Amino acid sequence: MAVYFRDVSISFGDCDALGIVYYPNYFRWMDGTFHAFLHDRDQGHTVMCRELGTLGFGLMDADLAFRSPAREGDLLRYWIEGIEWSARSFQITYRATLGDRLVLEGHERRGFFVERDGRIAAGDVGPLRDRLG
Amino acid sequence: MAVYFRDVSISFGDCDALGIVYYPNYFRWMDGTFHAFLHDRDQGHTVMCRELGTLGFGLMDADLAFRSPAREGDLLRYWIEGIEWSARSFQITYRATLGDRLVLEGHERRGFFVERDGRIAAGDVGPLRDRLG
Amino acid sequence: MAVYFRDVSISFGDCDALGIVYYPNYFRWMDGTFHAFLHDRDQGHTVMCRELGTLGFGLMDADLAFRSPAREGDLLRYWIEGIEWSARSFQITYRATLGDRLVLEGHERRGFFVERDGRIAAGDVGPLRDRLG
Amino acid sequence: MAVYFRDVSISFGDCDALGIVYYPNYFRWMDGTFHAFLHDRDQGHTVMCRELGTLGFGLMDADLAFRSPAREGDLLRYWIEGIEWSARSFQITYRATLGDRLVLEGHERRGFFVERDGRIAAGDVGPLRDRLG
Repeated sequence: MAVYFRDVSISFGDCDALGIVYYPNYFRWMDGTFHAFLHDRDQGHTVMCRELGTLGFGLMDADLAFRSPAREGDLLRYWIEGIEWSARSFQITYRATLGDRLVLEGHERRGFFVERDGRIAAGDVGPLRDRLG
Repeated sequence: MAVYFRDVSISFGDCDALGIVYYPNYFRWMDGTFHAFLHDRDQGHTVMCRELGTLGFGLMDADLAFRSPAREGDLLRYWIEGIEWSARSFQITYRATLGDRLVLEGHERRGFFVERDGRIAAGDVGPLRDRLG
Repeated sequence: MAVYFRDVSISFGDCDALGIVYYPNYFRWMDGTFHAFLHDRDQGHTVMCRELGTLGFGLMDADLAFRSPAREGDLLRYWIEGIEWSARSFQITYRATLGDRLVLEGHERRGFFVERDGRIAAGDVGPLRDRLG
Repeated sequence: MAVYFRDVSISFGDCDALGIVYYPNYFRWMDGTFHAFLHDRDQGHTVMCRELGTLGFGLMDADLAFRSPAREGDLLRYWIEGIEWSARSFQITYRATLGDRLVLEGHERRGFFVERDGRIAAGDVGPLRDRLG
């Protein structure tokens, strides 16, 4: 059972010379879905980072498999299927559909970025897990 | 009296190192507002271009004045204030607001692009004017 | 006589369904040309802002007139034609060419953003003018 | 031994509110590296597609692991490490470095898109393999 969804309206400028979505945009909308989810469940990235003392919930890796094309005028639904929590990272599973048709599926693995000795390091994700439940 | 509006939700990835919107995105959303308007009033760019025998309703010039900043989590309302029609181009006036606050104002001048002798040229915009009236 | 130039290689993903550059990218490259110029003449935006005590050299307005199209594989040359300095802003004039052909011309007006009473305000651009000569 | 490399100069506008590269840009540059490679080894995507009778060498899946951050002013080197050919797809392995430091590693799997019964399908990649050797 999906955790969250939001709709993305595909515009002319999101498409390439073939008239289908230029693929890095799919990653941009995946990231945007995560941030919309933070606003839906809590107070959004900016406020949450300030309260939790983190630089950001940044990316460790990301992948997408493109199952069918989407075009100008399509209304794409991005789903968060679930989140798996580890000690220093969490993995979010996504899917996007156009009506009944699967358009893509993929993941983001994110960390809880803190500054340590002037460098960005991955901290304990527990405090975020407690808030997103 | 405004002709049309649509809302744009500002995401983390739209902002720069100052935490405010990176300005080329404002142009992307201005273009997206025009394309959403084509879907609202008619059948959208792809179908309309096919029916009208044009390559696209492309840009001749574009300008924006940035009146106040917008940030992650803001819901920006883009307004089409009006359209002025000439023989071979039309100018669209835009404004974007955040509640009562003005964020930007600007214009796009667009043509009706046709292929002539293997080159892109500006055709008569009359057929589009008749449909968007 | 132009002040500075840099070359931009147009990639597949920069182009729209007509196979020509999607116009907000032209603004992105105009901004990128300004930042490359800051690295060429001085130490770049990040270091300069820290030294000058500013948030950034942000945008007040921007405009472009598109004179001819550019496509995948083209090497576009962006020129800074000149900079005009006022008390609280400066205007940069740009042009981009493809060999002998003019592709676009336009401007950015930028300010020297400082924080005042928790808001972003435009400060005196003199210290930047002294450095960029 | 790497097959190809090209340099990407990271600009202010490529970075997010943390001052590090916004991750979908890394996918955009990975795609741009593939297209630059097509120009380096052959005639580029537009001409090659016309000659080979394909719509494009489109994406089936893409992944990146982010090993360390990159910032404004950095010069990132994208490497194509190798290409593995199957019957109906090929996988390209990438790496990006900042001097000696690894910034990211990942893959693109691409197909040879043809139109079949009005839909996009994956054709035999042999003709492309013959040209890229």
